Amino acid sequence: SHSINLAVIPGDGIGQEVVTQGLKVLSAVLPQDVKLETKEYDFGARRYHATGETLTDADLDALKQHDAILLGAIGDPSVPSGVLERGFLLKLRFAFDHHVNLRPSRLLPGVATPLAGQPEIDFVVVREGTEGPYTGNGGVIRKGTEHEVATEVSVNTAFGVERVVRDAFARAQARPRKKLTLVHKNNVLTFAGHLWTDIFNKVAQEYPEVTTDYLHVDAATIFLVTDPARFDVIVTDNLFGDIITDLAAAVSGGIGVAASGNINPSGAYPSMFEPVHGSAPDIAGQGKADPTATVLSVALLLRHLGFETEAARIEEAVAADLAERGTTPRTTDEIGDALAVRVAS
Amino acid sequence: SHSINLAVIPGDGIGQEVVTQGLKVLSAVLPQDVKLETKEYDFGARRYHATGETLTDADLDALKQHDAILLGAIGDPSVPSGVLERGFLLKLRFAFDHHVNLRPSRLLPGVATPLAGQPEIDFVVVREGTEGPYTGNGGVIRKGTEHEVATEVSVNTAFGVERVVRDAFARAQARPRKKLTLVHKNNVLTFAGHLWTDIFNKVAQEYPEVTTDYLHVDAATIFLVTDPARFDVIVTDNLFGDIITDLAAAVSGGIGVAASGNINPSGAYPSMFEPVHGSAPDIAGQGKADPTATVLSVALLLRHLGFETEAARIEEAVAADLAERGTTPRTTDEIGDALAVRVAS
Ligand SMILES: CC(C)[C@H](C(=O)O)[C@@H](O)C(=O)O
Ligand SMILES: CC(C)[C@H](C(=O)O)[C@@H](O)C(=O)O
Repeated sequence: SHSINLAVIPGDGIGQEVVTQGLKVLSAVLPQDVKLETKEYDFGARRYHATGETLTDADLDALKQHDAILLGAIGDPSVPSGVLERGFLLKLRFAFDHHVNLRPSRLLPGVATPLAGQPEIDFVVVREGTEGPYTGNGGVIRKGTEHEVATEVSVNTAFGVERVVRDAFARAQARPRKKLTLVHKNNVLTFAGHLWTDIFNKVAQEYPEVTTDYLHVDAATIFLVTDPARFDVIVTDNLFGDIITDLAAAVSGGIGVAASGNINPSGAYPSMFEPVHGSAPDIAGQGKADPTATVLSVALLLRHLGFETEAARIEEAVAADLAERGTTPRTTDEIGDALAVRVAS
Repeated sequence: SHSINLAVIPGDGIGQEVVTQGLKVLSAVLPQDVKLETKEYDFGARRYHATGETLTDADLDALKQHDAILLGAIGDPSVPSGVLERGFLLKLRFAFDHHVNLRPSRLLPGVATPLAGQPEIDFVVVREGTEGPYTGNGGVIRKGTEHEVATEVSVNTAFGVERVVRDAFARAQARPRKKLTLVHKNNVLTFAGHLWTDIFNKVAQEYPEVTTDYLHVDAATIFLVTDPARFDVIVTDNLFGDIITDLAAAVSGGIGVAASGNINPSGAYPSMFEPVHGSAPDIAGQGKADPTATVLSVALLLRHLGFETEAARIEEAVAADLAERGTTPRTTDEIGDALAVRVAS
């Protein structure tokens, strides 16, 4: 493809600052003959306060026209917990069927980790993105009384599990170590757990070269801090994936460098790329935010659109930049500039 | 009370070995005038294979007669995943209404941690034990077909949440730092999340001296590795508690030293104390298992029964033993002997 028609959602807090740098690096890395068109969308807290809207059908129709979406961050303390998460972020993931939530973790040279002994970390989590406890199923009765009952229903389908498991096997097959770990809690959540395990074992038959194993989610958190090198590709449900990818980010350099893609591999809808971090309102507007996670999300975006060379160039630039990062703090803008220079040369 | 009538469930794998040491230390620490009676129960894989039973009504009636229960570990690869967990461990927690699942984390001097810089760690997780996604609610339709749907229902009641939140506030109030953190995912699991948050905020009014805060479970895993010293008491739901306590154990010395209590504070049913670790069949019968977690669980048991002095004596003995632990590995028995000698002197 020789053009990219990108929807840009800066969002709240530091979202605008990091997205600006992401776009700067994107422009710098693209060959001259690739036409980049961007359109900004004003979603998030401001729009919600002004109109009460989070994401309308018309918004979805507009976003649908793009090749991909780059998102900064959504969320603000002025909005009640859940409103923007359920009304925007999750609504978009579900509407565009982003069933592969891709979250790579690599501890790059020169990057600080809370773990002793600077272990080797290079794995990717394939988190299911459209099912599990994220569906919004459930409800409340007798709200606010001493007899209140609130339920949350985790919904898991063979269709939904199989497609993400297949995606993970294909990714594992394409990596040098060819290892795939299923993370669940099949000894307690036996209904969903058996579905995941059965499908995982079935698909494994088709990938004899991929080594597989299984970990309960609680045990997986132990290995993420005691032996993260054991992981290559992990496939897991929506909620477990949410939890372990924050931990994975923490041990492999922090959420300042953790990228993610909300991918619809079929291409039926545009995929969305975003840093794992939130809107960090406490440091917004001060030029303190690290745009690296957003820049790495741009690399995932480029790879998804077929620009493998450019994606790799960004990742190499980030690795080189981090390796040479001194102790003098740089502004958001300075980091973005440095990365733009590196990818252009 | 001047007698303890204890049910002992060695269980599977290393269970027998570690329980033997736990009982050794218990006998050594108790004053001569306290009569200790123990009765062993043969639950777990062996019984399941022989009879197909995991925990019958008659078993529950028998266990009910005791003051407390000490459990080693239950689980074996020969039994399908979920059978003993749901059929024994969770059945017992639910039958005896063990709604306070207490899991302290302390990084003791001399103990190895995967975290750099040997941070201060001294917090306790109060995990709800009888609700959430652990109820077994849910089901499967069209099993084994491409149209299978499996659900898991998290059930949360005002009654169940309030009693465990109250227990956690009381524990926070009794500790020097008086800090309580609610861990949930109330931006996504909004039905259950709002119930937890509302009750937490309501009870907080009655504890003006307790400082409170809130973390999403994913963010909590980050802080557990980047700043574990920020935690004093954590209260959380059954599944989140399962996940973060394994991580907490990993950063504060490993599951070899992680103790837990499944407590019914009302005393209507006996409480159960067990190491957080599993049955570790790979090292069973070799004298390699570390009985420390079981011995620390005995301390929790004694504290629960009102033997505060004896509980503290065990904890001091463990701290001293760990501080002096050399690099020469000791057998299960040797560690138990060393601890028994320390508590007796
Ligand atoms: C903000 C929230 C809805 C979201 C999630 O839980 O998926 C975030 O934590 C993430 O990991 O992208
Ligand atoms: C074995 C399993 C049922 C149990 C749980 O999930 O509660 C264990 O992981 C624990 O933490 O005690």
